[in-house]
Amino acid sequence: MTKTLTANTHAQLRNIWAELSLEGQISGFKRLSALEAGKFFAQLDAREQAKIILNLPMSERQLWIRVLNPDDAADLIQATDPSERQALLAMLDQTTRNEVIALLTYAEDVAGGLMNPRYIAVRPDMRVDEAISYIRRRAREAIENVYYIYVLDSEQHLLGVASMRDLFCSQPQQEVKDIMRAQPVTVSEHIDQEEISLIFASHNFLALPVVDSQGCMKGVVTAGDIVDVVEEEATEDIQKMGGTEALDAPYLQIRLVQMIKKRAGWLTILFVGEMLTANTMQLYENEIAKAVILALFLPLIISSGGNAGSQASTLVIRAMALGEVKLRDWWRVIRRECAVGIALGCILASVSLVRVLLWQAAFKTYGAHSVLIAITVACAVIGVVLWGTLIGSFLPFVLRKAGLDPASASAPFVATLVDVTGIVIYFNVASTILKGTLL
Amino acid sequence: MTKTLTANTHAQLRNIWAELSLEGQISGFKRLSALEAGKFFAQLDAREQAKIILNLPMSERQLWIRVLNPDDAADLIQATDPSERQALLAMLDQTTRNEVIALLTYAEDVAGGLMNPRYIAVRPDMRVDEAISYIRRRAREAIENVYYIYVLDSEQHLLGVASMRDLFCSQPQQEVKDIMRAQPVTVSEHIDQEEISLIFASHNFLALPVVDSQGCMKGVVTAGDIVDVVEEEATEDIQKMGGTEALDAPYLQIRLVQMIKKRAGWLTILFVGEMLTANTMQLYENEIAKAVILALFLPLIISSGGNAGSQASTLVIRAMALGEVKLRDWWRVIRRECAVGIALGCILASVSLVRVLLWQAAFKTYGAHSVLIAITVACAVIGVVLWGTLIGSFLPFVLRKAGLDPASASAPFVATLVDVTGIVIYFNVASTILKGTLL
Repeated sequence: MTKTLTANTHAQLRNIWAELSLEGQISGFKRLSALEAGKFFAQLDAREQAKIILNLPMSERQLWIRVLNPDDAADLIQATDPSERQALLAMLDQTTRNEVIALLTYAEDVAGGLMNPRYIAVRPDMRVDEAISYIRRRAREAIENVYYIYVLDSEQHLLGVASMRDLFCSQPQQEVKDIMRAQPVTVSEHIDQEEISLIFASHNFLALPVVDSQGCMKGVVTAGDIVDVVEEEATEDIQKMGGTEALDAPYLQIRLVQMIKKRAGWLTILFVGEMLTANTMQLYENEIAKAVILALFLPLIISSGGNAGSQASTLVIRAMALGEVKLRDWWRVIRRECAVGIALGCILASVSLVRVLLWQAAFKTYGAHSVLIAITVACAVIGVVLWGTLIGSFLPFVLRKAGLDPASASAPFVATLVDVTGIVIYFNVASTILKGTLL
Repeated sequence: MTKTLTANTHAQLRNIWAELSLEGQISGFKRLSALEAGKFFAQLDAREQAKIILNLPMSERQLWIRVLNPDDAADLIQATDPSERQALLAMLDQTTRNEVIALLTYAEDVAGGLMNPRYIAVRPDMRVDEAISYIRRRAREAIENVYYIYVLDSEQHLLGVASMRDLFCSQPQQEVKDIMRAQPVTVSEHIDQEEISLIFASHNFLALPVVDSQGCMKGVVTAGDIVDVVEEEATEDIQKMGGTEALDAPYLQIRLVQMIKKRAGWLTILFVGEMLTANTMQLYENEIAKAVILALFLPLIISSGGNAGSQASTLVIRAMALGEVKLRDWWRVIRRECAVGIALGCILASVSLVRVLLWQAAFKTYGAHSVLIAITVACAVIGVVLWGTLIGSFLPFVLRKAGLDPASASAPFVATLVDVTGIVIYFNVASTILKGTLL
C-alpha cells in the first residue's frame, strides 16, 4: 500500500488498489500514516470512499466523512445505500449537514450537484484592501476556492466576480464594485454537466458561479471538478456507442455478472432485430436458389452500408455532444451526408467493379454474366452506402428529439438497421438488372 | 456579431461564427469594440485566431498576437503555414519570442507544448509576507496563474509548491520552505496530454508544474487547459472508434472534400477487407446451392459476432485510454472476455433456438431438418460470438504493442475481421452437423 502513495499517476494508484481484496484495501488503508491516508482518501472517487468508510468501525467513520468538502460529502452519501444515509448525515456538523442536505436535492449530474456551496462573498462597497484581508481570514476555513470572490447584494444576487489577480492589480482604496467583472459568465443550477464542461472548454476559467433562476448565488464549480466529469461523460458515450450500457465502474473492477448484464441487453435486442434479416432473406430464397452467386456478395454489400452508417452516426453523435450540431441543424446535416454518401458509395462501387472484373479476367469465376453481376454489385453498393449514411446521420436526431440519448445510435445498432434494408436494396437492384439473364 | 458576445455558451458563439463567411467573420470582428473583440478573440481556438490575424492588415496583427500568453501564441503560430511563422514571431517582444520559440520545440500534445512558461518562482528562504507582496507585484505582469508559487533552488530545481491559500493560512514570519508542500506531484515535459488529463482527473488540482529530467521547473499546466484537451482526445478516440480518421475540426465547419477524404480511407480498407467474405463464401458455394436455407441465417450469425466484438473492443480501448488497463493486463482481460463471450454466446444461442423452432411450429418454414438447423445456428452463434469477443478484446492490445493507436480497433474494423472468420465457423459447424442430411 505504501507504494501506492509514492506512485505518481492515478492509473498506477488505482491499479494497485484495485488488485487488493476488500479486506486488503481496508487493512492497507488503516496502516497508512494520517497524512498519507488523507492524501490517498481525497483521491478516491465517491464510490470507493463510501466503501472504505462503511468498512471502518463506527468510531473512525466520523473523522473521514468530516475531512470532505460538502460537495464531496454529498457525493459520498449519494454513493451509499439509502439505509446508511441518515447515520452518515448525523456525523456531520450542523452547517455542513444543512449544506449537504441542500446538495442532495439536486441530480448528481447538474451544476447544483457538482458545485461547492462554500465560496467567498463580499459586498459591492467593500474596499480592495478589506477584501484581501477578508479572504485571508476566510482562507483558514474550509474554503476550497479562494481565488475568486463573488460580489453579492443583500439578497444574494450575483453582481460580479473579481479574481485574486484583479484585487492584486488594483489600488487598495478602490471599491470592489469598480474593479469587479460585471455580468460574469454563470451557469444555472439545473444545467447539465455536459453543457458546463463545454463552457469550461471554451473559456479557460478556473471556476464558474452557479446561480438560481433569480440570479442568486448558490455555489461554485471548479475546472478541477469538470476534468473528471468530461472523462466520465466521454466514457459513457463511448461505451454506449460501442453497443453496451455504460459500465459505471472501471473495466477490471466490475463484477463478471454485472459485465454480462450490461452487455447482454443490447446484444439481445440487436440479435432479435437482426433476425429480420432471416425473414427478409426468405423473401428472396428463390433468387438465391437460381443464382447462388448473389449470396456470395451479400456480406460485402450489407457490411459496407453498416460501416458507412457507423461513420455517420459517430460523427453526428459526437458533434451533438460538443454542441457543434443542434436539433435544428438536421437538414444541413442530412444534405451534407447525402453528398458524402453518394461520393463514398461511388468510390466503393468502383473498387467493387474493378474487383469483380479482375477476378473474372483472372479466374473466370462469375460465368457469362460477369459484367451484369459487376454492375449489380456496384449499383447495390452505391444504394446501400448512401442509405447507411443517411440512416446513421438521421438516427441521432430522432433519438434526441424523442428525449433519448443520441449516443445509443451505436455502430452495431446502425449496422443492424442497415443490414435488413441493405438486403432489400441488393435483391431489388439484382432483380432489376439481372431479370431475363440470371434471374 | 454583437449577439455572439452576449450569448452564454461556447456552442452558440461558435455556431453563429461558423455560419458567417470569412469576410463576414473578419468584418464582424472589426466592428466589435476593443473590449468585446478581446473577449471574443480569447475564446477562439488557435486555428481560428490564426485565420483572423492573417486576414487583418499588417498594422493590426501585432496588437492581437501580443494579447496572447506565450503558450497561446505558440499554438497560434503552430496553426499557421510555416511560411508565415517568421513574420508572426517577429511581432512579439524579445522575452515572449524566446519563450514561444522554446515552446515550439515541443510536440503540441505533450506537457511542454501545453504549458505556460510564466509562473511565480520564489526562493525557499523567502518569508510568507514577502512572498505575498512579491505575488502582488508579479500579478500586474502577464502571469495567468497567481494562485500557486513554486519554490526553486538557484539551479531551478523544483523544491515545493505553496498555494495562495497555504500562504494566507500561515504566519507572516514563516519561511516558505516550512509551509510549502515538498515533493509535489509534477509532470515531465514530454509526458503525453492524455496522461496529464488522468492526473488532473484524479487529483482535483488547479495547476501542475512541468519539470525536465533533472527536476528543473519549465512551466505550468492549468486545469482549464486540460478540460479542452480531454474533450479533444475523447473526440479523436470516438471518431477513430467509429471507423473514420479524426476530423480535426467541428463537423459543420469541415469542408466537404476534407470530410470525404477522412472517411473514404478507412471505408475503402474495410471494403477491401470485407471482399474476403466473397472469396470465403465461394468456398462454400456448393453447400449454399444444396441448402439455400443456410444462406438465410448468414447475416444474423456474422453480425452477432461483429456486435459482440465491437462491445469488447470499445470497452477495452476506453479502459486503456483511462489507464485502467495496461498492456501487461492482456491475459486477465482475455480470460474475462472468454467467460463473457461464452455467456453472451449462450444467451443469443438460446434466443436463436427458440426463434427457429417457433417459426417451424408456426409456419413450417424450415422443412424436415428444422431441429438440426436450429442446433447448427445455435452452435454457430456461440462460436462466432466467442470468437468476436476475443478478437475485439485482443486487437487493441496488438495495436498498442505495435505502437499504434488502440482506438483504431473500431467497431467496423472488428466487424469486418469477424465477418470473414464467422463465415468459416458457420459453414464448418453446418457441415459437421448437417452432413448426411441437408449437406
